[in-house]
Amino acid sequence: MNDNVYLIPLAGLLALIFTYNRAQWVARQDPGTDRMKRIAGYITDGAMAFLRAEYSKLVWFVIAVALLLAYQGGSGGTGTSALIGLSFAVGALCSALAGFIGMKVATKANVRTAHAARTSLASALNVAFRGGSVMGMGVVGLGVLGLSGLFFFYHGQDWEITKIITVLTGFSFGASSIALFARVGGGIYTKAADVGADLVGKVEAGIPEDHPLNPATIADNVGDNVGDVAGMGADLFESYVGSMIGAMVLGAVLMTGVDAFKNFEGGIGAIGVVMLPLCLAAIGIVASMIGTMFVSVEEGGDPKAALTRGELTAAVIMLVGGYFIINGLLPAEWVFNGTTYTSIGVFYASLIGLACGLGIGFVTEYYTGFNKEPVREISRQSAKGGAATNIIAGIGVGMRSTMWPILFLAAAILGAYHFAGLYGIAIAAVGMLANTGIQLAVDAYGPVADNAGGIAQMSELPEEVRARTDSLDAVGNTTAAIGKGFAIGSAALTALALFAAYMGVAGITTINIANPSVMACLFVGAMLPFLFSAMAIEAVGRAASDMIKEVQRQFKDIPELKAALAKMKEHGDKPVAEWPEADRKIYEAADGKAEYANCVSISTTAAIREMVKPGLLAVLTPVVVGFGFKFAMDGDGKSAAMALGGLLAGVTVSGVLLALFQANAGGAWDNAKKMFEEGKGVEVDGVYHTKGSDAHKAGVVGDTVGDPLKDTSGPSLNILLKLMTVIALVIAPLLVADSAGDDAGQPNGKPNVENNSDNKDSKEGETK
Amino acid sequence: MNDNVYLIPLAGLLALIFTYNRAQWVARQDPGTDRMKRIAGYITDGAMAFLRAEYSKLVWFVIAVALLLAYQGGSGGTGTSALIGLSFAVGALCSALAGFIGMKVATKANVRTAHAARTSLASALNVAFRGGSVMGMGVVGLGVLGLSGLFFFYHGQDWEITKIITVLTGFSFGASSIALFARVGGGIYTKAADVGADLVGKVEAGIPEDHPLNPATIADNVGDNVGDVAGMGADLFESYVGSMIGAMVLGAVLMTGVDAFKNFEGGIGAIGVVMLPLCLAAIGIVASMIGTMFVSVEEGGDPKAALTRGELTAAVIMLVGGYFIINGLLPAEWVFNGTTYTSIGVFYASLIGLACGLGIGFVTEYYTGFNKEPVREISRQSAKGGAATNIIAGIGVGMRSTMWPILFLAAAILGAYHFAGLYGIAIAAVGMLANTGIQLAVDAYGPVADNAGGIAQMSELPEEVRARTDSLDAVGNTTAAIGKGFAIGSAALTALALFAAYMGVAGITTINIANPSVMACLFVGAMLPFLFSAMAIEAVGRAASDMIKEVQRQFKDIPELKAALAKMKEHGDKPVAEWPEADRKIYEAADGKAEYANCVSISTTAAIREMVKPGLLAVLTPVVVGFGFKFAMDGDGKSAAMALGGLLAGVTVSGVLLALFQANAGGAWDNAKKMFEEGKGVEVDGVYHTKGSDAHKAGVVGDTVGDPLKDTSGPSLNILLKLMTVIALVIAPLLVADSAGDDAGQPNGKPNVENNSDNKDSKEGETK
Repeated sequence: MNDNVYLIPLAGLLALIFTYNRAQWVARQDPGTDRMKRIAGYITDGAMAFLRAEYSKLVWFVIAVALLLAYQGGSGGTGTSALIGLSFAVGALCSALAGFIGMKVATKANVRTAHAARTSLASALNVAFRGGSVMGMGVVGLGVLGLSGLFFFYHGQDWEITKIITVLTGFSFGASSIALFARVGGGIYTKAADVGADLVGKVEAGIPEDHPLNPATIADNVGDNVGDVAGMGADLFESYVGSMIGAMVLGAVLMTGVDAFKNFEGGIGAIGVVMLPLCLAAIGIVASMIGTMFVSVEEGGDPKAALTRGELTAAVIMLVGGYFIINGLLPAEWVFNGTTYTSIGVFYASLIGLACGLGIGFVTEYYTGFNKEPVREISRQSAKGGAATNIIAGIGVGMRSTMWPILFLAAAILGAYHFAGLYGIAIAAVGMLANTGIQLAVDAYGPVADNAGGIAQMSELPEEVRARTDSLDAVGNTTAAIGKGFAIGSAALTALALFAAYMGVAGITTINIANPSVMACLFVGAMLPFLFSAMAIEAVGRAASDMIKEVQRQFKDIPELKAALAKMKEHGDKPVAEWPEADRKIYEAADGKAEYANCVSISTTAAIREMVKPGLLAVLTPVVVGFGFKFAMDGDGKSAAMALGGLLAGVTVSGVLLALFQANAGGAWDNAKKMFEEGKGVEVDGVYHTKGSDAHKAGVVGDTVGDPLKDTSGPSLNILLKLMTVIALVIAPLLVADSAGDDAGQPNGKPNVENNSDNKDSKEGETK
Repeated sequence: MNDNVYLIPLAGLLALIFTYNRAQWVARQDPGTDRMKRIAGYITDGAMAFLRAEYSKLVWFVIAVALLLAYQGGSGGTGTSALIGLSFAVGALCSALAGFIGMKVATKANVRTAHAARTSLASALNVAFRGGSVMGMGVVGLGVLGLSGLFFFYHGQDWEITKIITVLTGFSFGASSIALFARVGGGIYTKAADVGADLVGKVEAGIPEDHPLNPATIADNVGDNVGDVAGMGADLFESYVGSMIGAMVLGAVLMTGVDAFKNFEGGIGAIGVVMLPLCLAAIGIVASMIGTMFVSVEEGGDPKAALTRGELTAAVIMLVGGYFIINGLLPAEWVFNGTTYTSIGVFYASLIGLACGLGIGFVTEYYTGFNKEPVREISRQSAKGGAATNIIAGIGVGMRSTMWPILFLAAAILGAYHFAGLYGIAIAAVGMLANTGIQLAVDAYGPVADNAGGIAQMSELPEEVRARTDSLDAVGNTTAAIGKGFAIGSAALTALALFAAYMGVAGITTINIANPSVMACLFVGAMLPFLFSAMAIEAVGRAASDMIKEVQRQFKDIPELKAALAKMKEHGDKPVAEWPEADRKIYEAADGKAEYANCVSISTTAAIREMVKPGLLAVLTPVVVGFGFKFAMDGDGKSAAMALGGLLAGVTVSGVLLALFQANAGGAWDNAKKMFEEGKGVEVDGVYHTKGSDAHKAGVVGDTVGDPLKDTSGPSLNILLKLMTVIALVIAPLLVADSAGDDAGQPNGKPNVENNSDNKDSKEGETK
């Protein structure tokens, strides 16, 4: 190891400085009129109130788990240390901080985007994207700095490399647990508010979306930030960190013992194979920063082209940089279990990961994209047979949409393994995620633009402003679909990387499906995403029903609101400006009377309450199954670790499939509904069905069904599978400690490398 | 082997004689008025036309596959024989015959049940149940006779026992392929007709269910027979045969080499462990026959109690008989791979299977049962938020309902293995299915009663007749729900038994999830049930839309129908008898003008056309994956067999979960709709929502969504997972033949027993 490695935390620091600068820039922009500021203030307050409520609960969870980990890690003899509690706490803190930073700037950027849209599309895009890039660069900065900082700290303890990495896994665990609660809580929050605002405000009272008289409208806008910004950020932070940890564990456990690495003096020496993921991430940071500078658009230009230009630039830099760094840090070739691997093979593995992520993203866009064939078919079914056939068609599209992503994933597994063994699968995940900085910036830009539109509407800004924010938002919908597919793909590869790492640390090389405990656990594991989804979906139902009651109460009990709503019904579509003076007075008297704070607090309370049960299910299951089997098997920790491996495989496979199904069905229903709202509507047998038609109403049913699937339960599954695997990775040393099995654990903190003989049967002595 | 074994085919023969007698008895009953006979004639003709169309396609498929199998089997050196083609053809023939017999008598029993209901409930139950029992006993008779007949024939060739059993696996393959096409084709048929009849007849034209003026009504009633009688029969025939084959393979491959068996002279000698499944089935036949005699009810009595009495009687006889036969055929204890097993342990394994099946059945009843909490919650959501919240609640219930069945299944796997090893898992499946005779009689009774109600309605029989058939039908709905859960549970255990058998024949003892090809195949396998479901669901959509067009055409083009419909609209709910003379004339002139045959032929054509693609997907995938990997791995058949094993595990796990989800969500939506139609309706906040309310309409949407899930795609998955596993079992000897792997195949027809060391790690030298 030489001094060049300190460039890694430096890259992290650079990202955070960039983040800070961008955040300051956003804060300096003009937030517009007083009314806009007031509305934005409500949203900011609501978002921060949620974070405060959430974090003040989670802090106890974090302290408790950190102490437990420290106690267990410190009790000695398991190759870990009390400092694993520190890793966990730092991981949790970084994740929480990333969420906080992202939300803070997103709630500033939304109103400033709305104001900028009063001048031009170009400046609106600029503000929205810079807001999003704060989230993106904040996540990668905290990830790289946190992880490398802890690494150097532990390295200073003079530990063996495997011990360093084992203790480091706690960081990923910490990040994952915060992510789970953020995704589940955020998902419940946003959908409860959304359903409440829609069903009572739009459907019952007949007022437009984002109308200031709707008490749930602020909660709805807060929800976009809580769910789409903080939730997505936590999700990708977790994948980003998890993929690196997975690859580092495999590097340390499998590779550092190999002769070619032990004696390697190029690059940063033997440790290069362990540090490679962090180095790739560092390159990714630079690439992302440069990429973001290419995102800008002329008035009348295409915002999507601008975003694509930024992403492509970053990708090219990443490719070139990745090629040199991989060749620099690794020996040209080495032999592992009789197979010869090469550094260029590792580069190919990273490319495969990137290609797989893009492939899944594009398939997602096809199945959920506006005016694409699957969405058209759903909207046609909506016109032909109403809500029932619309739902059936959506279920069909969602199920069918799993095919290509799974085939890509399978090909990536085979390809990455072919080129670089198990380490290659982990590197594929890293390759997919290295450009998270700009990827997440693009993802987070969407909800900022969406919120800007909401603020423009609530502040009653002119039509052309709303048109500009709408055009930004439309692009945001496409990028969101791609981003969701990408998040699922990266979650799958990350879980596999962590899974391989888990096996390495537990010192098991075989998880035999034919073994009855593995098979039983495979079934149970595959069932968990179904159960977890059901819990999330039902939680949304309960929370939404609280919200509905509150909105109905306000419409009944607040006289000014009641009077203004009556007038709105009376005048129908006529703009307020054209109403008679007296009626206009009544309407204006209602302004600000809606008790937004009540709705915000209902969503907050419900989200916090409802996130506990699914959260505990995810955290406790691996622990209970692992130690339960160890106990039932008279202390045979290896066999218990195999059973737990079966559980993880089940969770991963079924979780990825259900996540794809739910995200894509939901996305497709959403756009199928939009098909009726734009242009000439949907044509069936020569008849056009437009906004307000029965077919459109059936489309709204589909959209409402899809909402909790695509925004609550579906995305939470990404976290579920990563979290459960990382927990298994963290408890692995304890599980196999004092194992009564035939070739028991490693009392000296050294997971056994010797036994690792993955798939010895094939490819003896091949060269790649 | 002594002469007592010939009691087995004798039991099969006995069952067939019983079947014949019951069928004759049913035929002797009075089919009622001319009008009833005419309507029943339409249904019979339609059902037989479908079977004819289906079988005339399938015969080519059967011939082609049989020849292919014969050619491959006869090419020598793989431990199989050209006669495997014969096994396949006989299996296919028995399955087809079972379907034919069941349909034939069901279409006779329906009209006779309707007529019997004119006198009393008791005689109606009698006819319906005897009709159902023809299906039940026919299935078990053909299964036992076919399987044991082939066994004795092959035994006469002086082959080794492993070769006999290997060649016998073709029987199960034949049964499975017919079952797949029957389930998929039947499921598409019945739902296309149902949706067509409902959407145009009930919703558009506003005429009641099963009305003679609805052109699709005959097709709808044919569909009940095609889907629920023949489809369910083929499904259970396949499970019944598959579980026996699985256990027989394991007995032959794993056990006959063990000393305690080689030297065993009790019972029927060494072969007892192989013949045990057939002997248990023979006891089950006797138990079922006696059980059916206990099914009878007094006027005003409870038909459900009568059915339960019959089932309980059969279960008790089976238990006692099973205990003695197991103790008689097996040595008291033996040592296998260092673990001591006992005959009583095998008995416990069979009990565990039975308990698991019942457990899954009861959970299914809870989640889908009328007026049970989950169904009540769906109907309440229907009232609170309409179609969208109704659908969301149903999805939640369906997902949550997977938990207990999967836990039962996992417990059964662990328990059965604990008591009797891998053989125990197969015996658990046999134990679950031994009483298929009476179980299927109860299942098939439901659609007969349902059809009887339809005929009563179409023949315009008095109210009290319809009330009697309705009370029989209500019980049928409960038994159908339990039966569906049972079918899924038995499919899962059967697939596991076949999976274990596959590994035995392929001579592999480990399928390592951590191996990248296994992991990739696990993903792909788990995706297949999603893809398959999507294909089935979309096929129903296409077929239904053909049907809708035809019904609309008839309502427009046939003047008498058009006129009568107009009059029906005019008079609303008023009975025809009270209409003015002139209008009544118009109504009566329309009688018989609806062109039922067109609708029947549309459903038939669509079903036959649409069953091909999903069918080929199921049949070809294991072959392509198995030999594809073998080719890619340079002829390493063992590794290819492991990859294929990963595929099978994925299909099984995800197939069971999706089947449970779809069946239970569909069943729950169905009954949630019915909640509005009976009694005071559904209460929410003190308001009652009844038939015709908006909440009820939302409930109809849920029911329509659930229909293809619970009656087409869901049940087809049962077959998918069994069929793919049995195909793998059949091709296993070819796959590992001339294997380039390290310990290649068995050139002399002897799958390698020595290497089988399932889970050596644990339980060394324990005694059970």
